[in-house]
Amino acid sequence: MKSYTEYIWFNTSKRREYINITDKVEEALRKSGIKEGMILVSAMHITAGVYVNDAESGLIQDIDEWLENLAPYKENYRHHRIGEDNGDAHLKSLLIHHEVIIPVTNGKLDFGPWQQVYYAEFDGQRRKRLIIKVMGE
Amino acid sequence: MKSYTEYIWFNTSKRREYINITDKVEEALRKSGIKEGMILVSAMHITAGVYVNDAESGLIQDIDEWLENLAPYKENYRHHRIGEDNGDAHLKSLLIHHEVIIPVTNGKLDFGPWQQVYYAEFDGQRRKRLIIKVMGE
Amino acid sequence: MKSYTEYIWFNTSKRREYINITDKVEEALRKSGIKEGMILVSAMHITAGVYVNDAESGLIQDIDEWLENLAPYKENYRHHRIGEDNGDAHLKSLLIHHEVIIPVTNGKLDFGPWQQVYYAEFDGQRRKRLIIKVMGE
Repeated sequence: MKSYTEYIWFNTSKRREYINITDKVEEALRKSGIKEGMILVSAMHITAGVYVNDAESGLIQDIDEWLENLAPYKENYRHHRIGEDNGDAHLKSLLIHHEVIIPVTNGKLDFGPWQQVYYAEFDGQRRKRLIIKVMGE
Repeated sequence: MKSYTEYIWFNTSKRREYINITDKVEEALRKSGIKEGMILVSAMHITAGVYVNDAESGLIQDIDEWLENLAPYKENYRHHRIGEDNGDAHLKSLLIHHEVIIPVTNGKLDFGPWQQVYYAEFDGQRRKRLIIKVMGE
Repeated sequence: MKSYTEYIWFNTSKRREYINITDKVEEALRKSGIKEGMILVSAMHITAGVYVNDAESGLIQDIDEWLENLAPYKENYRHHRIGEDNGDAHLKSLLIHHEVIIPVTNGKLDFGPWQQVYYAEFDGQRRKRLIIKVMGE
């Protein structure tokens, strides 16, 4: 089994932001030389997520509104007693999930026609990191 | 590391449908000859999901009602401005998640007594695809 | 590819409980001797989950309240017609998800500074099981 690991840093200008990282994942796969296996893409912070869905700007706004509706920003989270204000970002991270596994076949992401990988930032405006690990042969 | 890949097609008669695919996953595992490792089962569309839970018809209706409650069908998603009407199906896919990883031990799915794999269709009545990739030794 | 499998049993005193299992996962990794690869941590029951987030007691209460809000205990789930009373636990398991994949680099969990692995019990007070499978080289 071969493996290849890469870290990507983000520092978003907005608190919440959705960044298409499909090309970064494809680049890591190309560098790895792996033809058959899978790729783990995982946020290294607990207030961010990774998901696979459509690169359509209206949908991305829908997703943001939906996440804010189900895991809203509010002042009185118990987590805020230790001086934080990002309780909602933790819940959004749990809802969207923090990692995905992508199949690799014939040296390519084995995706359907509309699948794209997104990094979802829920507490941005500071440096945060993501790991891409390709494993296979 | 050995690997084995299979694609399964669905064309559900209803818009939303929950299909137990445990036997398909077991069949792919048997064909792979792999005894130790894991299986990635992943929807290749962004309006479907894969989950592991109980094969109990009442619960499946509860799950469907719960998903509709948290990610309801409605007309005014921004995503619909490009001519779609399936915004809810994208959100349901994100909520239930689009893939699972199943452990393989001694040539079997290493599941607890009630675990079953389901394909969850949220925008059916057309051909859609799922990937099963077995990896290990 | 090497692999190493371990099972952990739980029997919580409360119905819902959140248990930090990071040290158990690290111990399994150490025993495996694997330096590069990944770890699958997966609940073997359909009324429990596994997630990665912060070891902060206020946040854990926030997570519990949030899960109860989005997937509440109630009497009239259809699943209860077969004599169960844990419909909410199935939905909470789907919401939080039942497994995570953790990257392994240089013989360590390749986590960010605050990432911890939790077992989330939603229908406890009885023996339940979790699988840890380390795979790599």
